[in-house]
Amino acid sequence: MRPTLSSLPDAAPVLAFGAHPDDIEFGCGGVIAQETRAGRAAHFVVCSRGEAGTHGRPEQRVAEAQRGAALLGATIEFVELDGDSHLEVRAAHAITLAGVLRRVRPGVVLAPSLVENQHPDHWRLGRLVCDAARLARYGGVRELAGWPAHAIALLLFYASTREAEPADIPPVLIDISRPEIVSAWVAAMEAHGSQTSARKYVDAQLTRARLHGLGGSVEYATALFPADRLVFSSLSGLGRGARGF
Amino acid sequence: MRPTLSSLPDAAPVLAFGAHPDDIEFGCGGVIAQETRAGRAAHFVVCSRGEAGTHGRPEQRVAEAQRGAALLGATIEFVELDGDSHLEVRAAHAITLAGVLRRVRPGVVLAPSLVENQHPDHWRLGRLVCDAARLARYGGVRELAGWPAHAIALLLFYASTREAEPADIPPVLIDISRPEIVSAWVAAMEAHGSQTSARKYVDAQLTRARLHGLGGSVEYATALFPADRLVFSSLSGLGRGARGF
Amino acid sequence: MRPTLSSLPDAAPVLAFGAHPDDIEFGCGGVIAQETRAGRAAHFVVCSRGEAGTHGRPEQRVAEAQRGAALLGATIEFVELDGDSHLEVRAAHAITLAGVLRRVRPGVVLAPSLVENQHPDHWRLGRLVCDAARLARYGGVRELAGWPAHAIALLLFYASTREAEPADIPPVLIDISRPEIVSAWVAAMEAHGSQTSARKYVDAQLTRARLHGLGGSVEYATALFPADRLVFSSLSGLGRGARGF
Amino acid sequence: MRPTLSSLPDAAPVLAFGAHPDDIEFGCGGVIAQETRAGRAAHFVVCSRGEAGTHGRPEQRVAEAQRGAALLGATIEFVELDGDSHLEVRAAHAITLAGVLRRVRPGVVLAPSLVENQHPDHWRLGRLVCDAARLARYGGVRELAGWPAHAIALLLFYASTREAEPADIPPVLIDISRPEIVSAWVAAMEAHGSQTSARKYVDAQLTRARLHGLGGSVEYATALFPADRLVFSSLSGLGRGARGF
Amino acid sequence: MRPTLSSLPDAAPVLAFGAHPDDIEFGCGGVIAQETRAGRAAHFVVCSRGEAGTHGRPEQRVAEAQRGAALLGATIEFVELDGDSHLEVRAAHAITLAGVLRRVRPGVVLAPSLVENQHPDHWRLGRLVCDAARLARYGGVRELAGWPAHAIALLLFYASTREAEPADIPPVLIDISRPEIVSAWVAAMEAHGSQTSARKYVDAQLTRARLHGLGGSVEYATALFPADRLVFSSLSGLGRGARGF
Amino acid sequence: MRPTLSSLPDAAPVLAFGAHPDDIEFGCGGVIAQETRAGRAAHFVVCSRGEAGTHGRPEQRVAEAQRGAALLGATIEFVELDGDSHLEVRAAHAITLAGVLRRVRPGVVLAPSLVENQHPDHWRLGRLVCDAARLARYGGVRELAGWPAHAIALLLFYASTREAEPADIPPVLIDISRPEIVSAWVAAMEAHGSQTSARKYVDAQLTRARLHGLGGSVEYATALFPADRLVFSSLSGLGRGARGF
Repeated sequence: MRPTLSSLPDAAPVLAFGAHPDDIEFGCGGVIAQETRAGRAAHFVVCSRGEAGTHGRPEQRVAEAQRGAALLGATIEFVELDGDSHLEVRAAHAITLAGVLRRVRPGVVLAPSLVENQHPDHWRLGRLVCDAARLARYGGVRELAGWPAHAIALLLFYASTREAEPADIPPVLIDISRPEIVSAWVAAMEAHGSQTSARKYVDAQLTRARLHGLGGSVEYATALFPADRLVFSSLSGLGRGARGF
Repeated sequence: MRPTLSSLPDAAPVLAFGAHPDDIEFGCGGVIAQETRAGRAAHFVVCSRGEAGTHGRPEQRVAEAQRGAALLGATIEFVELDGDSHLEVRAAHAITLAGVLRRVRPGVVLAPSLVENQHPDHWRLGRLVCDAARLARYGGVRELAGWPAHAIALLLFYASTREAEPADIPPVLIDISRPEIVSAWVAAMEAHGSQTSARKYVDAQLTRARLHGLGGSVEYATALFPADRLVFSSLSGLGRGARGF
Repeated sequence: MRPTLSSLPDAAPVLAFGAHPDDIEFGCGGVIAQETRAGRAAHFVVCSRGEAGTHGRPEQRVAEAQRGAALLGATIEFVELDGDSHLEVRAAHAITLAGVLRRVRPGVVLAPSLVENQHPDHWRLGRLVCDAARLARYGGVRELAGWPAHAIALLLFYASTREAEPADIPPVLIDISRPEIVSAWVAAMEAHGSQTSARKYVDAQLTRARLHGLGGSVEYATALFPADRLVFSSLSGLGRGARGF
Repeated sequence: MRPTLSSLPDAAPVLAFGAHPDDIEFGCGGVIAQETRAGRAAHFVVCSRGEAGTHGRPEQRVAEAQRGAALLGATIEFVELDGDSHLEVRAAHAITLAGVLRRVRPGVVLAPSLVENQHPDHWRLGRLVCDAARLARYGGVRELAGWPAHAIALLLFYASTREAEPADIPPVLIDISRPEIVSAWVAAMEAHGSQTSARKYVDAQLTRARLHGLGGSVEYATALFPADRLVFSSLSGLGRGARGF
Repeated sequence: MRPTLSSLPDAAPVLAFGAHPDDIEFGCGGVIAQETRAGRAAHFVVCSRGEAGTHGRPEQRVAEAQRGAALLGATIEFVELDGDSHLEVRAAHAITLAGVLRRVRPGVVLAPSLVENQHPDHWRLGRLVCDAARLARYGGVRELAGWPAHAIALLLFYASTREAEPADIPPVLIDISRPEIVSAWVAAMEAHGSQTSARKYVDAQLTRARLHGLGGSVEYATALFPADRLVFSSLSGLGRGARGF
Repeated sequence: MRPTLSSLPDAAPVLAFGAHPDDIEFGCGGVIAQETRAGRAAHFVVCSRGEAGTHGRPEQRVAEAQRGAALLGATIEFVELDGDSHLEVRAAHAITLAGVLRRVRPGVVLAPSLVENQHPDHWRLGRLVCDAARLARYGGVRELAGWPAHAIALLLFYASTREAEPADIPPVLIDISRPEIVSAWVAAMEAHGSQTSARKYVDAQLTRARLHGLGGSVEYATALFPADRLVFSSLSGLGRGARGF
């Protein structure tokens, strides 16, 4: 009988994928801040420079993303696939992202949710990451021969809006109520000044986190959606249940 | 800001409800064995004496249940509601069970799943426990005035068969692969000799636990179904994801 | 071919049912305020005096409900069924509520959602109202012989919390952003001082309305869940679609 | 606070997309007839010439589509993507259709449903239109730079058969019972003589509309499926609920 | 290894339950006609005399039901539970119906669907039959001691309207296109003259059967909804798949 | 009225599609063995040589597949699409597979399930087969002009793991309990020695078949998932219902 891996290896970094320069910060920045403040490494992979958005030039948006990642304590890289608003679900992209997984060797991976009624790039990137997490484990994919196979510990989806939250996966709620975490998250969102000057994005995310917090009896919470069933080594690892008012 | 309760209080017992004398052992006995071997208290509440079953007399079944609980390291009591195969969803029953919750003051509560296409008593008991978990918190229920209000930490449903597993709640898998845990579970199931002599119940449960184990990359696992969203204080508490072959 | 009733008759009142004295105000008070300010009559039927709650004595809660209804421009009556936290789904109750429907003769009816994982009285009242709306139409129910049969125009469910919003019915969003509407709603919620002094209920509802508003590109919106398909006489009656950020 | 757009702008045309020359007529022709008879402009975009069908040559089918559109009071254009039975979900196609949206600037948009178990072109076109509706709003998509950004008011899916009706979106029913509307619809379907001579398509659509009508207590109704939540400025805009027998 | 029962025993009758005198005829009369014409026995159990309906006196409706059953070749009995529009889900009722199952010893059982948004008696009767099918198998239910235990072969739900068809169970379609079957079905529905004179019930059922037939490439079909998974002894027993146009 | 095809034509072969050399054997080998032993022809189409897997060289895996098919009494061919772990959903592939359908002219077709959270090639092949089954019927697809159109009788999905079983389609269970069938199935799985030496695949499949058997009251069963509704010419063709313990 193999030994059971029931908690995440301490050394494995958290890896978050975003389709546009601000997606990670808005979708799960609070969770990242909390992990890095607890000493875990975090790395961001951003798959476009946001060049199809209404506001902000690509170089400006790249700089904002770099600053946002820094404020969250994360490193960042850009992996160009098809470009903003042009992303397609191609096997070659999944293999590219599987290569990233083999190189970074993360424990937890965060990706946009698969809900199709949102920005067309978001769910496609989620789909690609989901496929990549499998391909990273298969020993014979020739394009990936340069790195040893890697099995991630856990794939979680994040949502950029209430509408992007999957209806068929009950979320797990991560308590991000500590004031220094909320502050770091807000700062990272505000780093994307080209976006936040145009619309009330920061307010929207805090409202959503507040509502999830109310459901979980904490101040602020981020809802994450597990791609797979969760495995625990005992009942006592299960956290507690959310009970609203 | 209130302090966040993100792990279960060590002292709070696990409380499991069963509609018939053998339901807890068959549905989640391995998990109970694991908790009691780890030093947590467990208590069983059984709501009939199995008097409508095809096999076994009531007094025999009560004795089997007592022996099954003992083998799992749990205490046991019988709470008569409407009798085997006669259970109804009545407010008075929910209040009775809420009284049990206030008296026992559990952290984790286990109850039969709400899937309606199974033994008619099973989902009705699940429904009653679900309601009871709310009523136990409300300060003004006059029948409950004898005990202080109590909020449980977590309600999890167990299933007695594959068909009773809810289709709309992804399970959490609890690894119960340690040989001494499997042995204790089998012994507790076999304590119900009036039932196991008649049909292949033990084989059925082991087969199901093996299949859940295969999905979670462990030997044996029990699938439990959270009634509410799970709340964690950080990503690192989330366990890992199940990946089948 | 019968003439098609495609808009609601102007004279028919809105009728809202609540299980406890504050449920209507918290769940859909903004919508009520908007209707009464537009000249439509509204009537509340409250089915307990909140006597099982942790805070507030029954007579106090009745007075709060009367004041809340008045602030929303609605009339109110109390229909005692089984008492707070004791409600059961009985045919006699459905017939009692059908009698109310025949007497009040509403167009739109509002009732708590059928989601079972909330206060046990809430979904049971929703279930009873749903049944009552059918029974009010059947000519031969002898207990209802005193009033002519009545067919309501529309049954909509409201939710008291995020968790009570049905996952399987897409909501319709009602824009309640006008400042005087929001003010009236907040005042009506605050009329329930025995409850709002204890917990952050008003904040929770405004947060939820704000999030629904963000999804619908307005300031504040209430989500309502139609019990039946909606019928329109033309495409142009359909309102518009919600598009989040 | 921005002014709320709660009814559709009178001048904005209805835009319907079809994968094959007869799809719009069969799927939602009655609704189109009703809109154009009420003075609203309607435009059809047909994405193949039906060249892979069993019956009818491409030039014949184009002529039939032109006649069908004329009978419904709509204008029509053909946008070639990959050809009949060869359609793929490509970013370039979504951008092409977004260009159509920017040029036509519709209020309501109609597209085939996303149910995958139907003609392979149908759901793929629905998917493309869904994506196009988002891309049309984004300011930086370079291929779309020739037209100002445009936000449609509402995206509704239509179904060509009972099997293509989404199970997870409750339909809105549009009453199309007026005899002149039914006549116009039948005439437009019969304009596709290459198809209707072969199988009982017209009978099938009338049967389906009759069944939806029975559910909505009118003679004939078309079921449409909103892509997004509907937003209304008050309860009174909600139409009424369907109640079957 | 026990012998596998893979086809229904020829001698076992079909047993259909109806909440009101006309429910069976309208919901599944064509299927019954086909079975009895093929030589299988059919028996109806009707659980009220329709005394709460708008049209028809109880004695008239009983006579209509007797005539309807006769036209379908079925025997009939009346089992009074709580009366029309007063049905409740009580353990005693389930046991009463289990007694019927033990006495009649059917193979296939037909009952109203569990969809809750229909006549309140319909789904409650479906729920009771579902429970009764289990209780009939349990050897120790004292009220049932007079008959030997009985396991039915198959429980199928029927729907009285399109709205009562379960969304979460794919139907099996039974081809009832033979002209003599359709005629017998229509005659049996028209036997309920107190109802059919008032509204277009017969037309509604034929329209629904026609639409299901179109989906299954036959003239008329009845949709039935299995309560449990179907078991076949080989692929060749599976019938064929429905393909719409 | 056309004659109704209610049983499968005896001469039509079963056609099974697999993405990798061992998929058919592991997913539905027992069913195949049973069909061929009953005298029906079976043919396998395998769409890669498994070259991206961790274990086994392509030529070895091709040989294993040939031996597995032979042990099951089936013929086999390889159709190269994009290669192992590189499969994309392309119209050209669907047309290629439609050509196979026209050439082989099967009755029942078996394909991998559409659940997306499994090997990326599996659900894509299922999607392609689903589309191909439609395209095979359309008379005007020019690439298919060499064969007459063909309508299959039934498309069933198989699953390689518990996780790949669709949650939204109730399975039909095929009893494969006969010892010679189980033996043939195990032998065919073990023919893939490059895979089975590495992990406990055979044990996993037998465990799953045993659990499905327990639900269906037989020793071993394979769960298959119909793509379309099933059509039967009478109730007596329906098999029986599965009832677990």
